[in-house]
Amino acid sequence: MSQNGFSIKHIEGKSRVGTLKTSRGIINTPAFMPVGTAGTVKAMLPENLRTIGADVLLCNTYHLMLRPGEEIVNKLGGLNKFMNWKGPILTDSGGFQVMSLANLRTISEEGVIFKSHVDGKKFSLSPETSISIQKKLQSTIIMSFDECTPYPIDKSEAEKSMKLSLRWGKRSKNSFGRNSDSLLFGIQQGSMFKDLRKSSAIGLTDIGFDGYALGGLAVGETQEKMFEVIDFSIDLFPYNRPRYLMGVGKPSDIVGAVLRGVDMFDCVIPTRSGRNGQAFVEEGTINLKNAKYKNDDLALDPTCNCYCCNNYSKGYLSHLVRSNEILGSILVTWHNLSFYLNLMKDIRSKIAEGTFTDFAKKF
Amino acid sequence: MSQNGFSIKHIEGKSRVGTLKTSRGIINTPAFMPVGTAGTVKAMLPENLRTIGADVLLCNTYHLMLRPGEEIVNKLGGLNKFMNWKGPILTDSGGFQVMSLANLRTISEEGVIFKSHVDGKKFSLSPETSISIQKKLQSTIIMSFDECTPYPIDKSEAEKSMKLSLRWGKRSKNSFGRNSDSLLFGIQQGSMFKDLRKSSAIGLTDIGFDGYALGGLAVGETQEKMFEVIDFSIDLFPYNRPRYLMGVGKPSDIVGAVLRGVDMFDCVIPTRSGRNGQAFVEEGTINLKNAKYKNDDLALDPTCNCYCCNNYSKGYLSHLVRSNEILGSILVTWHNLSFYLNLMKDIRSKIAEGTFTDFAKKF
Repeated sequence: MSQNGFSIKHIEGKSRVGTLKTSRGIINTPAFMPVGTAGTVKAMLPENLRTIGADVLLCNTYHLMLRPGEEIVNKLGGLNKFMNWKGPILTDSGGFQVMSLANLRTISEEGVIFKSHVDGKKFSLSPETSISIQKKLQSTIIMSFDECTPYPIDKSEAEKSMKLSLRWGKRSKNSFGRNSDSLLFGIQQGSMFKDLRKSSAIGLTDIGFDGYALGGLAVGETQEKMFEVIDFSIDLFPYNRPRYLMGVGKPSDIVGAVLRGVDMFDCVIPTRSGRNGQAFVEEGTINLKNAKYKNDDLALDPTCNCYCCNNYSKGYLSHLVRSNEILGSILVTWHNLSFYLNLMKDIRSKIAEGTFTDFAKKF
Repeated sequence: MSQNGFSIKHIEGKSRVGTLKTSRGIINTPAFMPVGTAGTVKAMLPENLRTIGADVLLCNTYHLMLRPGEEIVNKLGGLNKFMNWKGPILTDSGGFQVMSLANLRTISEEGVIFKSHVDGKKFSLSPETSISIQKKLQSTIIMSFDECTPYPIDKSEAEKSMKLSLRWGKRSKNSFGRNSDSLLFGIQQGSMFKDLRKSSAIGLTDIGFDGYALGGLAVGETQEKMFEVIDFSIDLFPYNRPRYLMGVGKPSDIVGAVLRGVDMFDCVIPTRSGRNGQAFVEEGTINLKNAKYKNDDLALDPTCNCYCCNNYSKGYLSHLVRSNEILGSILVTWHNLSFYLNLMKDIRSKIAEGTFTDFAKKF
């Protein structure tokens, strides 16, 4: 286990405010990680991510191993130097993307063989190669290699998949070794089945990780179902380790999951929506392509203090979005990430004050 | 004539260093104007344009009248407020874009009727409507409405076109009026014919403008031919007015034109190249898609002090460009505009020192 560590500063019900110390700095939790798939959070400068309150970014092993390749990233100084981001970076294991390649991949006990979506070249990923690639990328938080179980699925298939992920988790841990500045997180599977989620959590805790992720969620189930899985899973994880809900989600998903004890999140929603002219505001989302914004001289959210809201009208943003101007993607992404990161800041201060449960119920 | 004015500070041969005072601030000449076609310099934030030394931007009347429309820009506070740029803005007259619509437009003495490339809707432009639109946009420097003469062309056609532009120039001036905070520039035509260029310059000077543009160049002629036209045109303009070479150009075009007495330039080359992964460096241009840059850990130009060169390697830029990442467009555009604006700064200080002629000959 690394010397880095997780400290819980405040609790309210199952919700926690904490700090995760990493070799690249501290992550304040509950934390939202902007997604920088290919080594860049699309349309954002790293300095501006820091300014709006991002402590940690997520990058995708799958995309980076295909292009430019982990050897090149390593030669150019590792992911942090490569992309000019000084803070922690969490890399996923590549498993999730590979599983979604459907016909282009074959799974065995050893790992997965697949074809690149970039040029059709053959690649393989196993617990050992995934960890080795993430080490070459110089990731701060490494995810163990798992199979993201499809949904919906029969219980017997879900069990086979969960057990494979556990064996892969063990191999990931062995491959990770003992002397690393990085942290290693394990990933729970088991689909929506309570006893499988339980076996998975117990198995992972036995192996021992620096953090525990809930995998195989946000794959098409309802929010209610997802919350149910979190409810019966969360207490199975070691209390003093961070819990990460992968690929989630909408603001209401995040608030509900924090209420249930989750500490970390990542999602492409704010960035992808930003590039599509969809903006997050207090009342929900607004589509800047809607004709009524053409003449609107107000900011996206007059109470928001981000660069976009301080300097531009909805009328201008609507014009940029309609004209497919890059600045439209930049500004709406900037606002959306600010919205998400401000939400996390609010959540942290409300837990510290003991008012988060009320806030979450009204949300 | 406006109270704003042009002062010449240094001269070396025909080259001049000056300041053009406008209602939105001072333009140091020789000046390069980044092009913000639709009310945004593609992939750049206005604050960063200011930081790298842009004094003035160019926006296109044609694009803005079609989308979002001058009425909306006016309602949203005028171009400066709309696009969050505090400095001067020069708008073209729309003539150039309309002429290039070929089959989609009809020219008469009155003006031009054309169909929008956005939605096929019918629009018209005349000297009066062009000036009125530019006033609604709240442009700092307004261009008179002209016909950009095609090239190559018979002399008789060139003469007809030049005379039409003169009549339109007169109507532009009348329409502009006397009490405006804006400046009005006239546009010389006459294709490559010396006597036509002369008649045009004399005609424009009789009308009287705040500045004089060389139009109908950079339309397919050689650099030598363009320089020849500048050589026999430049002394026909009032000495104490700024001279603007429209749509030019490559660095060597700019250096050669400054040597011949030109004060202002605009061109899409640095921004368009930036979005295509083509970067300007001391030795010329480099294409970041070239395989040899994949592993390159050096900055685009190690002597350049721009944000891109200070923080990113060619290897990373090459990865962004190959992956069609927005950040690739942002960073290479940033560098290219820095390159152009640094070149203008160099030119100004070399003229002040009296070393520009030597520099231009070696360039």
